Amino acid sequence: MSEVRQKAASAKQTAALMSSLTTAQKNEALLLMADALVTEQQSIIQANQLDLDRGRENGTSLSLLDRIKLTEDRIVSIAEGLRQITELPDPTGTELESFERPNGLRIRKIQVPLGVIGIIYEARPNVTVDAAGLCLKTGNAVVLRGGSAAISSNKRIIEVLHEALSRSALPADALQLIEDTDRSSVDEMLKLNGLLDVIIPRGGASLIRNVVENATVPVIETGAGICHTYIDESARTQMASDIVFNAKVQRPSVCNSIETLLVHEAFAKRHLAEIAGRLKEAGVEIRGCETTLKLLGYGTPVTEENFATEYNDYIINVRVVQKLDEALAHISKFGTMHSECIVTENEDHAARFLQLVDAAAVYHNASTRFTDGFEFGYGAEIGISTQKLHARGPMGLPALTSTKYLVIGNGQIRG
Amino acid sequence: MSEVRQKAASAKQTAALMSSLTTAQKNEALLLMADALVTEQQSIIQANQLDLDRGRENGTSLSLLDRIKLTEDRIVSIAEGLRQITELPDPTGTELESFERPNGLRIRKIQVPLGVIGIIYEARPNVTVDAAGLCLKTGNAVVLRGGSAAISSNKRIIEVLHEALSRSALPADALQLIEDTDRSSVDEMLKLNGLLDVIIPRGGASLIRNVVENATVPVIETGAGICHTYIDESARTQMASDIVFNAKVQRPSVCNSIETLLVHEAFAKRHLAEIAGRLKEAGVEIRGCETTLKLLGYGTPVTEENFATEYNDYIINVRVVQKLDEALAHISKFGTMHSECIVTENEDHAARFLQLVDAAAVYHNASTRFTDGFEFGYGAEIGISTQKLHARGPMGLPALTSTKYLVIGNGQIRG
Repeated sequence: MSEVRQKAASAKQTAALMSSLTTAQKNEALLLMADALVTEQQSIIQANQLDLDRGRENGTSLSLLDRIKLTEDRIVSIAEGLRQITELPDPTGTELESFERPNGLRIRKIQVPLGVIGIIYEARPNVTVDAAGLCLKTGNAVVLRGGSAAISSNKRIIEVLHEALSRSALPADALQLIEDTDRSSVDEMLKLNGLLDVIIPRGGASLIRNVVENATVPVIETGAGICHTYIDESARTQMASDIVFNAKVQRPSVCNSIETLLVHEAFAKRHLAEIAGRLKEAGVEIRGCETTLKLLGYGTPVTEENFATEYNDYIINVRVVQKLDEALAHISKFGTMHSECIVTENEDHAARFLQLVDAAAVYHNASTRFTDGFEFGYGAEIGISTQKLHARGPMGLPALTSTKYLVIGNGQIRG
Repeated sequence: MSEVRQKAASAKQTAALMSSLTTAQKNEALLLMADALVTEQQSIIQANQLDLDRGRENGTSLSLLDRIKLTEDRIVSIAEGLRQITELPDPTGTELESFERPNGLRIRKIQVPLGVIGIIYEARPNVTVDAAGLCLKTGNAVVLRGGSAAISSNKRIIEVLHEALSRSALPADALQLIEDTDRSSVDEMLKLNGLLDVIIPRGGASLIRNVVENATVPVIETGAGICHTYIDESARTQMASDIVFNAKVQRPSVCNSIETLLVHEAFAKRHLAEIAGRLKEAGVEIRGCETTLKLLGYGTPVTEENFATEYNDYIINVRVVQKLDEALAHISKFGTMHSECIVTENEDHAARFLQLVDAAAVYHNASTRFTDGFEFGYGAEIGISTQKLHARGPMGLPALTSTKYLVIGNGQIRG
């Protein structure tokens, strides 16, 4: 049996036990895991060094190496993340509905773990711990498949966590790491219907596309973010400038940053030069429509392909539109249903935008950067769903649950 | 552009308008549709006759012809189903959460339509109307792809419904029927990411398997039902006999009927002959394990493959087990997570079964035949979900919705 199938089967074996644990038992295990990470930080940093050395040999970029790198501070912060998960309410076991039918059947709908969750991700070793914590807290078994760039770190982290679990009420088999980092191990996971209940991809566009296109296991699509901010004619200048600057520059590498600025022509004529200048000064490359380039006197011409690209970088597309509906049409065509914003003082326009834009989070007069589990007050998140089934937007612990009907009778049969 | 892509694109064009309609507008459209079906029943019956004639020529089975057949009574009843949908609460627009963050952001989570729903189904023309009614009531556009056996009926029904919609506030394009009944039109639908938000298959195991294995659009898996009843040692004899008889014989063709009876050995020695005899008298073929065949003195030996088959027919597998855990292991191995039942007077065993069995509906002392939207009091259903994401068990109107966050600020940016 392949490593993937064997580990998924071992995880599945624990699902019934996992669903029976108390919240206290799960929290205790998470605290043991957190303590173990801190206690074993030196051995984790040593393993991490192997990844970094290999990365440097292979010519890995500095920014990727930084994402892989673990330090004492980072490990303490990762452990702290686990402790924070113990403070979140446990959704499992919650009764969502309870009613009696005229024939006397008593029906209860309760929240239960999903079962076995597959997580496919890239380089960051902190995802290994975060995902483990969120899945185990909700009574799920989890099969992790991280990228090759952090495999030595991941293996050591899992050893440490397994040792911690062995001192807890949780079965260590509920936490599995696929060590085979060949692409074929991902392909195999995607088809493991019956062993995996759901797959959550976390990573760049090509990883997510591969999962969505090839999985037969149900998928929760996360993270692709071609987000827009539309500045309406009536927008307040400083507010518009601040929101656009924040949404583009504060952290361009993440999914809730914006790729395209849409500006009403009247506003653009008065203030686009100032807003674009501020972006340019911060090192943002401007790709503009014809009107934009005319108004600014600099920038490169924007293409349809640019509009359809998630840069995650210091680049912004700028398009001047004649009216709100043109902005709505642009967002409908190019948006990935993640986060979209209108800056306006016109309440009718705001209401129309909030109503018609089909996205996980639609903003009026605030930066799209707030689409985040912590910023929404949900605590840690497993990702941001950009699909409409099951969960949409920041996914906290409830997104890792399903439901079950318990039907209690005294001999009822159907007539 | 192909018929499938063109019709899905037309449906998608209506999504924003559909999401803006009032409940009253949608209900009025459904009532117009219901009236039109009754008014136009003769032309529908004529079109249906074409399907029946073609079916007879092609040697279609009598039971399938009966499922295709439309009569005045059936059309009146289908129209009545639409009227009943108007009486159900409209989940869209409901505010599920509303809170203010410390930074002053006001966040509202509201229920919204899924968008465009693809339904892939087989012969029954009533599904055309039911699915249309449920999807339109929830503000969704819908692309229907029914089987060739009822295509003439479906085309006429859609003409009638389109004519009714043209007199309503709803865009007729929100309701689409794919007339191409070649398998390739299904294949194309399954990959229409960006145009379809979800696909719901309704039909037999092979249809569902094809959709699950090949769709890149998110799918809600429905209907596969290998369901079990386990009679525990302490079960009351008459209750056990009635529940098993009802779950097998009352309507064997549906997903919530049982395929396998598991019986505790002590109970089997005393009462299996009586229970099996009653099934046999009703025309049910018995396929038994060794102990079963010994106790009964008749029946054919059951195979692993039998245990993994949804008969939808007058056949039952019978297996005698030594204890509850053997029954649980059997259900875990062969069940499709649909509906599972324990008949017992032992409350500990009942609690253990309800806790450990991983299925949409788990029963204690009642027939599995109750897994149904009407029987649960939810009104009409679009299907019974056997997956864990999004919806599980009977899916009423709320299963046809997603959510959206509206975030209202006054210039907030992230620090």
